[in-house]
Amino acid sequence: MNLPAQHPLRQAIAQAVQDVKSQSPMAPSFTNFVTMNFVANAQLACGGSAAMSFIATEFDAIAALAKSAYINVGTLLPSYSDALHAITADLNESAKPWVLDPVAAGLGQTRTDILTDMQHNPPTIVRGNASEIIVLAQLWGLDCGSSSHGPEGVESADDVQSAMEPARLLARFMAEHTPSGQAAVAVSGEEDLITDGTQTFRLHGGSPLMTKITGAGCSLGGVTATYLSVASPLVAALAASMLYNVASDAAAQALDALNQCDSCAPVRQALPAGPGTFQALFLDALAAATAEQVSAAEISEC
Amino acid sequence: MNLPAQHPLRQAIAQAVQDVKSQSPMAPSFTNFVTMNFVANAQLACGGSAAMSFIATEFDAIAALAKSAYINVGTLLPSYSDALHAITADLNESAKPWVLDPVAAGLGQTRTDILTDMQHNPPTIVRGNASEIIVLAQLWGLDCGSSSHGPEGVESADDVQSAMEPARLLARFMAEHTPSGQAAVAVSGEEDLITDGTQTFRLHGGSPLMTKITGAGCSLGGVTATYLSVASPLVAALAASMLYNVASDAAAQALDALNQCDSCAPVRQALPAGPGTFQALFLDALAAATAEQVSAAEISEC
Amino acid sequence: MNLPAQHPLRQAIAQAVQDVKSQSPMAPSFTNFVTMNFVANAQLACGGSAAMSFIATEFDAIAALAKSAYINVGTLLPSYSDALHAITADLNESAKPWVLDPVAAGLGQTRTDILTDMQHNPPTIVRGNASEIIVLAQLWGLDCGSSSHGPEGVESADDVQSAMEPARLLARFMAEHTPSGQAAVAVSGEEDLITDGTQTFRLHGGSPLMTKITGAGCSLGGVTATYLSVASPLVAALAASMLYNVASDAAAQALDALNQCDSCAPVRQALPAGPGTFQALFLDALAAATAEQVSAAEISEC
Repeated sequence: MNLPAQHPLRQAIAQAVQDVKSQSPMAPSFTNFVTMNFVANAQLACGGSAAMSFIATEFDAIAALAKSAYINVGTLLPSYSDALHAITADLNESAKPWVLDPVAAGLGQTRTDILTDMQHNPPTIVRGNASEIIVLAQLWGLDCGSSSHGPEGVESADDVQSAMEPARLLARFMAEHTPSGQAAVAVSGEEDLITDGTQTFRLHGGSPLMTKITGAGCSLGGVTATYLSVASPLVAALAASMLYNVASDAAAQALDALNQCDSCAPVRQALPAGPGTFQALFLDALAAATAEQVSAAEISEC
Repeated sequence: MNLPAQHPLRQAIAQAVQDVKSQSPMAPSFTNFVTMNFVANAQLACGGSAAMSFIATEFDAIAALAKSAYINVGTLLPSYSDALHAITADLNESAKPWVLDPVAAGLGQTRTDILTDMQHNPPTIVRGNASEIIVLAQLWGLDCGSSSHGPEGVESADDVQSAMEPARLLARFMAEHTPSGQAAVAVSGEEDLITDGTQTFRLHGGSPLMTKITGAGCSLGGVTATYLSVASPLVAALAASMLYNVASDAAAQALDALNQCDSCAPVRQALPAGPGTFQALFLDALAAATAEQVSAAEISEC
Repeated sequence: MNLPAQHPLRQAIAQAVQDVKSQSPMAPSFTNFVTMNFVANAQLACGGSAAMSFIATEFDAIAALAKSAYINVGTLLPSYSDALHAITADLNESAKPWVLDPVAAGLGQTRTDILTDMQHNPPTIVRGNASEIIVLAQLWGLDCGSSSHGPEGVESADDVQSAMEPARLLARFMAEHTPSGQAAVAVSGEEDLITDGTQTFRLHGGSPLMTKITGAGCSLGGVTATYLSVASPLVAALAASMLYNVASDAAAQALDALNQCDSCAPVRQALPAGPGTFQALFLDALAAATAEQVSAAEISEC
């Protein structure tokens, strides 16, 4: 059942979206090289500020100026195992909340070692696809009977529903090991599941065109970190995913309108607008989405 | 002479384009940092899937899930010499076909050492500009009297025709050292030459605007790897280059239409659409191109 | 007071813009991973050519083919301290002029060590925001009583005016230690200050939308290096910054025209064009700007 318009969560989400627009918080990222330009532009578009770093001492210096941070293990280099160990230890020592995107969890020993090590300095939010959430819960010994069919590269091999229990277990584990006692897990897919370990919410909407551009998930992780600068883990995860659903729907509608626009017919009959145009429209939509629109997106409690 | 419409090669090319759209194969890349976002988006646009990695154990784990791979030596890091030696050995041990883009071949000792070493574990397809193809043949001791005027950075200093014999020698050498016994070389330029060492084809078309955006060649290499997941080296190289010619022509036509559109005159008189808009339109065109359109592109045997 | 239309500087700026369009000089970059695609596309759009490298021997080999180079310390890796020491020594030994973008100067020990070391092999142009210029002057012991409020990540915490004296001191120091005896510093902000240590100029214009896309400053540094291939440090710095002001204003006007275009109303009422569309329009505008337009931009001597 869709949460009522006056639900306190909706108000907190609207507040988070508004606070990012007015405070422009900088959330530094240690993220993959493929999509980091898109991550930075998405953080800027929603009103935040971006900075990227890949050396522990540098990252710590930037994180000291920030209220939250983002780590994404998409592309690894030999120096990253030590760097990420030091960085996660520093973040947790300074009680700085951070978001993990466990890209391609389960693929390769270096990645497995890095993600396994993070159990000792866990994040505040994990955002991933279903396979990544299931695998991460397994790596951390939070067994719940679920097993992943994946990974199949960076795409999910499992449906969102099958990650519900692992997501809850992860959220509870992180909440227990996080200074604030609060944590959240966001499972992205055709529908999204977001849980703080106690309550679980289901989000609908979001355009399938998002799977046709690289970095949709990575940049959602970055924007989640931006919101984590101004909100609790649950509210930050909900606000970012709802923003993404609202913005991707708006961009998809604008793409349709472009392709059906009579006055543009000579252009679009030759070449329908597709993923290249969609990517630009999506950044436009991230910037255009209002706190009211984001907080009014469909959300139901499981 | 343009190949007849019913030529078996055209049918195989149409099949490859269609198979990528329906099977969505993932072809992992070890590619340069400048253009990797564009490589990934181009692979997605043509219907494939992307994953990037720069550590040997990680790359091997991803490649084990794939039917082909892509290596591009555009930007090197100190760890790459060992990583690429291990990766190319692993690819060839597991008889996995792969595409090499020998970006800026001849420039710098590290690059020369890496490309020279690849003779021991050769790729299945090489795609490069004329200078890169000539230099690579020289590095591998496949001397044919050609000598490059280059390199001049990452741009070709030689014309396509002068790379014809080096391309054939390279293709024959790779075919002899590849488990399948099949290989191909694609020389990109104003016109493209594509050879399997026996037959050589010439492709026309393709917009000169492609030289105004970074990553045209790199992303063509990635898309060639995507097609290599579902087709022979010759068919994959032809299909990818013909797709690029068809799509860049379509994007250039759409750009012209935008600039001549009466209803957009207030926008375009102030600022004609140029390379920024072209980049988005090109991704749109990669996604819009049909198997029929690609396989019908002009192609003649030399 | 706006410089008169026939001022020799305006003629030199027009010449530089034209020479880049006709000679297409390649200016290699050692630059950060976040924005390097945008740097390369900006260099291509203004008529130049791009190449990126992160290993000293490779960079030196590329730089040997070039007339200028660009170094940006935005994202560091462990190998960079040694690489940048060797590269800057090689550039200065071969009397090759180069542009430094001291991104986030003052943040982290590795960055501080790298920037401090560059005093021994100084650049020919420094382009940065006010905080970066003030901090760099302090790192080099060029004390002038100014102190930075920053850094606050990668954004400036100081206004442009407060960097005027540090900029002049930096320019004089570099001029004394540069073979040509000429150097310049460009301080970017709402207005830009550009000085060769003797004369100081103030530029107006430029759209605030440039702060909504990542890489505006980084790519300006790259384009400055492109102009440095064909012009003196002062003329190169002025030409690049004036191009950016002209192009960002043109892109912002085109964005407004798109959003007010009656025939596009169904598209734009659903979703106003924003930062995603602006990024593409800005590259279009870089390519469209003429030597006459750039050299006619507002510029006054302080």
